[in-house]
Amino acid sequence: MLHLIIAEAELELVPESIRDHPAVVNYARRRKKKPEEVILDSTYHHAALKKLPDGDRRGRPDIVHICLLNALESIANKEGLLRVYVHTRNDEVIHIKPETRLPRNYNRFLGLMESLFKKGAVPEELELLRMEKKPLESLLEGITPDTVFVMHEEGELIRPRSFGEILASHKNPAVVVGGFPHGDFTRPIEGKKVSLYREPLMAWTVVNEILVNFEAALGL
Amino acid sequence: MLHLIIAEAELELVPESIRDHPAVVNYARRRKKKPEEVILDSTYHHAALKKLPDGDRRGRPDIVHICLLNALESIANKEGLLRVYVHTRNDEVIHIKPETRLPRNYNRFLGLMESLFKKGAVPEELELLRMEKKPLESLLEGITPDTVFVMHEEGELIRPRSFGEILASHKNPAVVVGGFPHGDFTRPIEGKKVSLYREPLMAWTVVNEILVNFEAALGL
Repeated sequence: MLHLIIAEAELELVPESIRDHPAVVNYARRRKKKPEEVILDSTYHHAALKKLPDGDRRGRPDIVHICLLNALESIANKEGLLRVYVHTRNDEVIHIKPETRLPRNYNRFLGLMESLFKKGAVPEELELLRMEKKPLESLLEGITPDTVFVMHEEGELIRPRSFGEILASHKNPAVVVGGFPHGDFTRPIEGKKVSLYREPLMAWTVVNEILVNFEAALGL
Repeated sequence: MLHLIIAEAELELVPESIRDHPAVVNYARRRKKKPEEVILDSTYHHAALKKLPDGDRRGRPDIVHICLLNALESIANKEGLLRVYVHTRNDEVIHIKPETRLPRNYNRFLGLMESLFKKGAVPEELELLRMEKKPLESLLEGITPDTVFVMHEEGELIRPRSFGEILASHKNPAVVVGGFPHGDFTRPIEGKKVSLYREPLMAWTVVNEILVNFEAALGL
């Protein structure tokens, strides 16, 4: 089983310190929600984000959405060979059942995430998505992978096809992909650092390279 | 050069016959646009879509968005080995320059598409995206590919890795992927029908399988 972790993802509710910013207040009103109930989104809260530490990288639920759509609709997932997790900048972990059919529409996805932050699990009975407070280290401990790879711009350059073969040669590998637009993980992660290309890649491109080459190595 | 065509994509302005439907009128008002200026979107125009032929598959700009984000951010594109086109149900073709950095945010992408339908090219000077009236056959004729593959549920089952190798063995192959959520192409397309999996796959999954396996076959 391949465990794919989108880590330090820029997915959070609007932080308290900017809840009274006009960009946030107007956005929440337009969506008929309270400011503390809406997901931070750099497209709409750009002006308010300038006041936050790491403001130039926060508020990117779109990255999580695209990574998850690619992962959940992959052949690897259809074959039952994949588990996907989202770990956020605030140390929440989202567990996602493999059979989850995520909303394709971004605005509906935002609504789902807002619901998840409020209720802890959605939909109520099926609990396809479940969120808990948990640091990355504890998530990894719980998975008990036989090896951990951390996708990193400064990691060892390995061709994607070879990396797929390495992953396929393990029983229970975990791969950590940063769920942020640029920069580095803010905390150290134990694992082998790997880079797939000489230039930075978007998180969802890394996800695609990993999953498709993993499948190919397994002869799928 | 690999030519990737998202064909018969469900991308269109709201058709005239439903422009006075309340679901459309309210949506356009909310977005401060005229009903004839907004892109048809099944998430918001569901009630109106029921009145249209093929209403159960139309209004899916999200599929185009995700396919394009994956294709434009792929290693194949960064290496200059890819051209991407969108062909719509109404026989428009969108030419996309490889260096285009598409909006990651879905709502901004919709705005860009609305602008493209209005102006024919965006942004004005760079013309990163350019739209023209053109059937799929003429697009293919213009590309002069040495072979055309049509991704199709009933096509010959070829493993994705092998298909990547077939593509890499051609100088100028074209691959046609349906830009609709389910069902078949409405018009026949000349080319070899290929299927990558025993079950239907989402359009963006097919795009990912094609591009990553094409890159791998080239040793990237």
